[in-house]
Amino acid sequence: MTRIYNFNAGPAALPLSVLEQVQEEFLDFYGSGMSITEISHRSKWFDDVIEDAVGRVKRLLGLNEAFDVLFLQGGASMQFCMVPMNLLPQGASADYVNTGTWATKAIKEAQIQGKSVNVVASSEDKNFSYIPAKMTFNPDAAYVHITSNNTIKGTQWASFPDTAGVPLISDMSSDILSRRFDPSAFGLIYAGAQKNLGPAGVTLVIIRRDMLERVPADLPTMLKYTTFVEKNSMFNTPPCFAVYVVQLVLKWLEETAGGLDKIEAANREKAALLYALLDESDFYSGTAEKQSRSVMNVTFRLPTEALEAQFVEEALQNGMGGLKGHRSVGGCRASIYNATPLEAVETLVDFMKEFARKNG
Amino acid sequence: MTRIYNFNAGPAALPLSVLEQVQEEFLDFYGSGMSITEISHRSKWFDDVIEDAVGRVKRLLGLNEAFDVLFLQGGASMQFCMVPMNLLPQGASADYVNTGTWATKAIKEAQIQGKSVNVVASSEDKNFSYIPAKMTFNPDAAYVHITSNNTIKGTQWASFPDTAGVPLISDMSSDILSRRFDPSAFGLIYAGAQKNLGPAGVTLVIIRRDMLERVPADLPTMLKYTTFVEKNSMFNTPPCFAVYVVQLVLKWLEETAGGLDKIEAANREKAALLYALLDESDFYSGTAEKQSRSVMNVTFRLPTEALEAQFVEEALQNGMGGLKGHRSVGGCRASIYNATPLEAVETLVDFMKEFARKNG
Repeated sequence: MTRIYNFNAGPAALPLSVLEQVQEEFLDFYGSGMSITEISHRSKWFDDVIEDAVGRVKRLLGLNEAFDVLFLQGGASMQFCMVPMNLLPQGASADYVNTGTWATKAIKEAQIQGKSVNVVASSEDKNFSYIPAKMTFNPDAAYVHITSNNTIKGTQWASFPDTAGVPLISDMSSDILSRRFDPSAFGLIYAGAQKNLGPAGVTLVIIRRDMLERVPADLPTMLKYTTFVEKNSMFNTPPCFAVYVVQLVLKWLEETAGGLDKIEAANREKAALLYALLDESDFYSGTAEKQSRSVMNVTFRLPTEALEAQFVEEALQNGMGGLKGHRSVGGCRASIYNATPLEAVETLVDFMKEFARKNG
Repeated sequence: MTRIYNFNAGPAALPLSVLEQVQEEFLDFYGSGMSITEISHRSKWFDDVIEDAVGRVKRLLGLNEAFDVLFLQGGASMQFCMVPMNLLPQGASADYVNTGTWATKAIKEAQIQGKSVNVVASSEDKNFSYIPAKMTFNPDAAYVHITSNNTIKGTQWASFPDTAGVPLISDMSSDILSRRFDPSAFGLIYAGAQKNLGPAGVTLVIIRRDMLERVPADLPTMLKYTTFVEKNSMFNTPPCFAVYVVQLVLKWLEETAGGLDKIEAANREKAALLYALLDESDFYSGTAEKQSRSVMNVTFRLPTEALEAQFVEEALQNGMGGLKGHRSVGGCRASIYNATPLEAVETLVDFMKEFARKNG
């Protein structure tokens, strides 16, 4: 067995120690005589898993009792439709900031429902290469929706905007639990697990309880946030295995990686190595504007597409995978989420220097 | 490590050889150097997984090219709302047969949307202990919805009703791929994976292509069947791990268990052992009417609730788990899906005889 350094954008690298634990206990979960994939979600075993995961999210993010932590299915894409369906009443409007592909999809799903959307800022004028700095929010907006990190364009909100009391809602799929922030301004946060949290198939939703008052009574049961709050994410069978791996990743983050401040420092160190190389290089060029650079997804171009293809191929031969840019934009991308070790980035930087020397 | 005989209703027992394969290749999926939980859903590796799974479902069920096979999230509960949302136009009505808890929920989710529902038959008069034999379908119905197997009450449609051309739609969560049937009358079949197919977190949907013409254009993207048909279940990141385990279970069913006819014979043999014991016993009593008995879930009572609790406890001490009835009805239940080996049922029958002898 040879493990590679995995720079996939998502599904992405998971901590090796977590994978090893999953493997070791896969046939007999905590003495149950069953696999985690075979135990009842109504059992004490699974209750312990989901309760522990909820508790760790609350501790790691410093969430007070105003927040509920849910595990849903359908990915961030399902949240694009559930957010306006639940939280944007007819007659009201919501502010959206458009910073790329995922924000565009979130806006579209609100509009499909006939909801009133104000796009208060967009970076589409420069191919979404930056996070807009200036925007004016509608004081009567039902919420302000942003995408905290943009995997495809490699941009990230360095800090969150002051919405003067209007609840912030953020898709944090690709940077949840990568850095500390003040959650009090947020009405809802959602994150597909498959970047920083665990395997694909579960979506973390953090909802401030006052938001629940907006949920229309006549929505289908599976599309109402209240359903999952009332049943502790278990109205029906949850994606047990994915929740279990998330719980182990959260435990790793708290107990092995040293918590949110330490992982944030590690993430900044990893990103700084790559961006320093891009800045000093005539061969590589970063695609995101400097003040908007993502600490999670480092996007860059080489002089030609042929060299980019060669780069991705040679990197793989040298044990580094997932460096191809998103199919919609091309180029190269190194996704360096929480579970990517520093040595992976150091190895990549060395390879990039050598590749530029040989091909520059 | 001690594995138990697992009679859980779902999540339920999986084939041990499948679990062992998952365990063995968990850190390095087919030489990728990554776990199945870390590979991209846009990779050749995952394409092979989902294509193989789709092909096996089609072969096993004898589906012709009129059918698409999808893997969705949200469980059967999400299908309760997606079916009428997609396939029951305003102005039309649908026929539903109410055979218990899950059918009742399916009816409720259609009604929540203001859709017109005709409950053409119900077994609620006798606590859902049978499958209605006589009913008259509306020839103009958009579809007829049934629940092929009822896990909680232990009943199952022995054969499917003649709807005279009206598309049948069935929740087959708890008996999919347990027996052969003619799929041609079905417009849509759905099944949460966590009984006969794999782990929780993925839902099999089989849709006949002519049904897609009904899908309203203005539905949210993630709630439209057409979205998943057009993108081969990968509009967004699918629940990769769950799909992968399903693929291995399907491979096991075809190549190890010998296919659908052999697994059906094995399932009938297992159920016959338990029902024979119930019929000859003065101590145990089956709760489902004989002609409606489920081959998947055998429900029974003991003389007192105290004895039922003692039975479940002593069975567990003897290596048999999951025998408690659903919390909504009490009693006992042995779920004996495809992956439950004959020897598990034989061991249970021996234990039941001994328990009756000592406590009868």
